[in-house]
Amino acid sequence: MEQRAAALFRRLQDEITTALEALEPTARFRRDAWTRPEGGGGESRVLEGGELLEKGGVNFSEVWGPVPAAMAKQLGGEGATFWASGVSLVLHPRNPYVPTVHANFRMIRGGAERWFGGGADLTPSYPFDEDASHFHATLKAACDRHDAAYYPRFKKWCDEYFFLPHRGETRGVGGIFFDHLKPDATHDLDGLFAFVTSAGEAFLPAFLPIAERRRATPYTEREREFQQWRRGRYVEFNLIYDRGTHFGLQTNGRVESILMSLPPIARWKYDWHADPGTPEARLSDYLRPREWV
Amino acid sequence: MEQRAAALFRRLQDEITTALEALEPTARFRRDAWTRPEGGGGESRVLEGGELLEKGGVNFSEVWGPVPAAMAKQLGGEGATFWASGVSLVLHPRNPYVPTVHANFRMIRGGAERWFGGGADLTPSYPFDEDASHFHATLKAACDRHDAAYYPRFKKWCDEYFFLPHRGETRGVGGIFFDHLKPDATHDLDGLFAFVTSAGEAFLPAFLPIAERRRATPYTEREREFQQWRRGRYVEFNLIYDRGTHFGLQTNGRVESILMSLPPIARWKYDWHADPGTPEARLSDYLRPREWV
Repeated sequence: MEQRAAALFRRLQDEITTALEALEPTARFRRDAWTRPEGGGGESRVLEGGELLEKGGVNFSEVWGPVPAAMAKQLGGEGATFWASGVSLVLHPRNPYVPTVHANFRMIRGGAERWFGGGADLTPSYPFDEDASHFHATLKAACDRHDAAYYPRFKKWCDEYFFLPHRGETRGVGGIFFDHLKPDATHDLDGLFAFVTSAGEAFLPAFLPIAERRRATPYTEREREFQQWRRGRYVEFNLIYDRGTHFGLQTNGRVESILMSLPPIARWKYDWHADPGTPEARLSDYLRPREWV
Repeated sequence: MEQRAAALFRRLQDEITTALEALEPTARFRRDAWTRPEGGGGESRVLEGGELLEKGGVNFSEVWGPVPAAMAKQLGGEGATFWASGVSLVLHPRNPYVPTVHANFRMIRGGAERWFGGGADLTPSYPFDEDASHFHATLKAACDRHDAAYYPRFKKWCDEYFFLPHRGETRGVGGIFFDHLKPDATHDLDGLFAFVTSAGEAFLPAFLPIAERRRATPYTEREREFQQWRRGRYVEFNLIYDRGTHFGLQTNGRVESILMSLPPIARWKYDWHADPGTPEARLSDYLRPREWV
């Protein structure tokens, strides 16, 4: 299963970077392979200065070895070995009408246990109902093929996880999030793998139609500034709360691969709020859990 | 002592904002008074879009009440009351040759104990030895008037506290940092208050001469980009590691006052390094502890 999972994540990296490069007239992903002294390694692919993507990263990793002290509680105790593989992406489009998007799919073995985690979520600056509905509906269809209870459960989990308590707002319009998905009476490991495969394969059809229909929307400096201000919130979430980021930094992960999630430019303005009635003011209605399907 | 300390911190806020406004042709600090439902309040003063300061905040607060759960361990246990007052500032100058600077002075009473904390540190993008030496020498003189052991101890503490482990670098060229400074056989509470007064009064003479001698240095978009990239590291420190920031957010502090420390614009570029031999490459030699006096 470890081999099949790693092969899936590598295939997803290939398919996603190929599809994104096909939308870029000239920009290409820079590929950085790296190895981990304790075992394993990965390949980071980052594209900067594209026409669609101002900055985007699609990373693959497969690592293993003795359980690091910082992970012992989570991974089967000290003295155990672990294995982990996954694909993780964050895309920061240039056009403020194209939402930022994140997805991550992973499998972990710690001691004698194996589990899957992952998800995908959408963070618009200028939200469109049809985009949020399409994104959710595509992920829901992938979930429904495996368990009708998955989408409602993972949609709620996503709203709860991608939440900034100090702002009292969600990161964006959500999607799905799941973790510690272990075999049980309903789904064996093969069944879980099949679900993660479906979820991973749903990413491109969930996101690309949105990117394609918004990428040519005209915009001015006003929309760019708002986008950069919103990206400040993305930075706040990733650096203050994101468990993957903290886990990576604490376990001496490859810093530039972990922090590829940060936006190219972010702004902070003291106590700024959109004026009521402006297009920017609409967003706040979208930063709380809503039903999209 | 609580009254004297709060009066000191309020006076420092006044003196510092007055001195900074005197260097701005037109920009002025916006003043926001706020109250805390559980007791106390403060006044945030933030200036944006200045000629010297692209963004700067100088905040005063004096709060009290029952010890919040998140602070119980630190503040005398549950059921105790606490009182805290301080002045906290972060200045992000516009000219990339003027360093970012932070200072904070505070007194806390938790249960039956009182202590002081604080410090000041300098974060240049383009470092000058004479600036770092002047900043440190001014703070050292303030320390030396009270205890010859203070500066070496607090200088080291600053290097250790303002450190980004994932980058293996200090935030800047340091300064002084101290915390949990309680009365002992050598210094009674009045003596500690006198030291904090000296340290607080040393801020303007430590920083203003640097700002004045660098503020007219010509620069291009290249230096602005490097400054914004460096400000990404400032964001990383404040959001990942800074205890004051986490403490404030966890205890439901005034979010915009806490996060006034974040820069107006920050950039992240994947795996970017200054080319050897460039002015930007010089900085890395300054991001490790050095003796400046």
